[in-house]
Amino acid sequence: MQNSYPNRQWIYVKRPEGRVGPEHYELREEVLVGNLAANEVIVRASIISVDPYIRIQQHERNTYDVPHPLGIVQRAGVVGQVVASASPLFAEGDWVSTYSGWQLYARCHHSELTKLDPSVAPVSTALGVLGMPGRTAWFGLMDAGRPRPGDTLVVSGAAGAVGSLVAQFGKRAGCRVVGIAGGPDKCKFLTDTLKLDEAVDYRAYSTLESLSDAIQAATGGVDVYFDNVGGRVTDAVIPLIKRRARIVICGAISQYDGGLDKPDLGPRFLQHMLFQRATIQGILARDFINRMDEMVATVAPWVRSGELHFHETYVDGFDELPAALNSLFDGRNLGKLLVRV
Amino acid sequence: MQNSYPNRQWIYVKRPEGRVGPEHYELREEVLVGNLAANEVIVRASIISVDPYIRIQQHERNTYDVPHPLGIVQRAGVVGQVVASASPLFAEGDWVSTYSGWQLYARCHHSELTKLDPSVAPVSTALGVLGMPGRTAWFGLMDAGRPRPGDTLVVSGAAGAVGSLVAQFGKRAGCRVVGIAGGPDKCKFLTDTLKLDEAVDYRAYSTLESLSDAIQAATGGVDVYFDNVGGRVTDAVIPLIKRRARIVICGAISQYDGGLDKPDLGPRFLQHMLFQRATIQGILARDFINRMDEMVATVAPWVRSGELHFHETYVDGFDELPAALNSLFDGRNLGKLLVRV
Repeated sequence: MQNSYPNRQWIYVKRPEGRVGPEHYELREEVLVGNLAANEVIVRASIISVDPYIRIQQHERNTYDVPHPLGIVQRAGVVGQVVASASPLFAEGDWVSTYSGWQLYARCHHSELTKLDPSVAPVSTALGVLGMPGRTAWFGLMDAGRPRPGDTLVVSGAAGAVGSLVAQFGKRAGCRVVGIAGGPDKCKFLTDTLKLDEAVDYRAYSTLESLSDAIQAATGGVDVYFDNVGGRVTDAVIPLIKRRARIVICGAISQYDGGLDKPDLGPRFLQHMLFQRATIQGILARDFINRMDEMVATVAPWVRSGELHFHETYVDGFDELPAALNSLFDGRNLGKLLVRV
Repeated sequence: MQNSYPNRQWIYVKRPEGRVGPEHYELREEVLVGNLAANEVIVRASIISVDPYIRIQQHERNTYDVPHPLGIVQRAGVVGQVVASASPLFAEGDWVSTYSGWQLYARCHHSELTKLDPSVAPVSTALGVLGMPGRTAWFGLMDAGRPRPGDTLVVSGAAGAVGSLVAQFGKRAGCRVVGIAGGPDKCKFLTDTLKLDEAVDYRAYSTLESLSDAIQAATGGVDVYFDNVGGRVTDAVIPLIKRRARIVICGAISQYDGGLDKPDLGPRFLQHMLFQRATIQGILARDFINRMDEMVATVAPWVRSGELHFHETYVDGFDELPAALNSLFDGRNLGKLLVRV
């Protein structure tokens, strides 16, 4: 097979100190020659993911991974179609998900691909509700959060890719669910679309005390806190925990654009952990990767039946990838942000 | 039985804002008339305990308890002897531990007493290694800390009543144990007497970075952190945690004299919980009270055989109780502080 493909790639070339944007990337155009070895395929990306974890990996110091190397294609999750195959497992036209990053075409070993069945769910869900964010939400809540019927669950970043799923999983587990998000539109989404019990707009409160009071009024105390944002919102929630509360640290998006290298100061709170004999547990999607089938088996029927709401926000155009990543930190997107290429 | 007893009591009359001292107490002298009902006894205190938790309960706001009421005898653990008994379970001369507080004599229902056997261990140990501090150390480390052979365990407040036991339990569990304490004498105690692998004198480092570097050099990374002190020491340890570290919050003594009502600021650290998928768990002695016999059965033989070092510091005189409590927050005492009355 000697077809060739007009590839475009976003090369990560410079570490951001604050926000990430196009200035940290170079657009490279080159021809990918399809001289496939056995069990290799060429995938043409259709949808490329931008996720907050990408910004963590761009830090210069080790975080949960070694830093993303400079000079290579930005790593990211991708959904695409096979356009050439030397694998017995994949045929041209098959939909797959893979981790080939910000490029139009990629040569992949077939072990790197997961075949998608468009009759089960839209293929885009492999980057959202049936992919990494869904796995994070499901196991983070159910395994680390241990929700019980009647518990009050608070979710920060509740209108986001992970938070909106956690909130709905919490409702299904019998919790009273209070979502925290920024702005009235997101809060309306939480109560009207996701049917949460209450929503708190953190932007409506200028002081930590008033925000904390508002969350207390909405919750009456917190049994489970699923945290995607950290910072001031978390400062406001932690003093409200109840006896033996479980706090799940899934993200700290408020800290990603600079605050990880030189952390902000915030109020000390470990005394609340002591008084309430509470637990904090940090989780990552990869912790549960071996249980992906368990998540999909549970959640896919809810997706197919329409019981579970998964909101996707699309940006169009390969050129928009760096700006789309940057926009995650504006707090304006609803649900899962995807780039159609 | 109509004997009467010249009682002396320290009455808690005023909430401290910073350090606690004699000015927050009134000394009351009154005769206790020994008109015992069935199953009551009179206990004459011999040793009265001062513990950091007492200061927590003095805060005006709820902590893990409702605040200690004003106008009553300061609550505390006591070891004493029965001087009169209307109980079939206790005879005059029996040694007991109870919770009758800062007073020389107390009328108690026999259900409030635990009989002590001086042939098992010195009776004072019922306030230390075989009492509340021992229970906290044993279950806090073994249940919440989950030490494995080869783990690196860091203990803050390692020369204190709980910390010195945790450190030795960690050695017995096969851990490499690094103790943190204030001053060269305490550090010498940690390495020479308790036989810890390393000791770090937190007072020897003026910046957070240098303290953290010293702990990193002594540990190479932290699997289990047993925290009695909070504040700056904890700020220095948390960035050093390794994958799936367990952090046990047993105390935050650096915060007790004021910092609980209006917490200090400290560096945010929840991102480390995320990156390392670590856990924090707050524990209190009372969480394990139903397993007291299990702790005593395990630890008492080590006390009897002399394998376990339990250091006691004595202050003499009932009048000294408020000053002794205050002295806990100087960080000068070694082991368990007790007041002989």
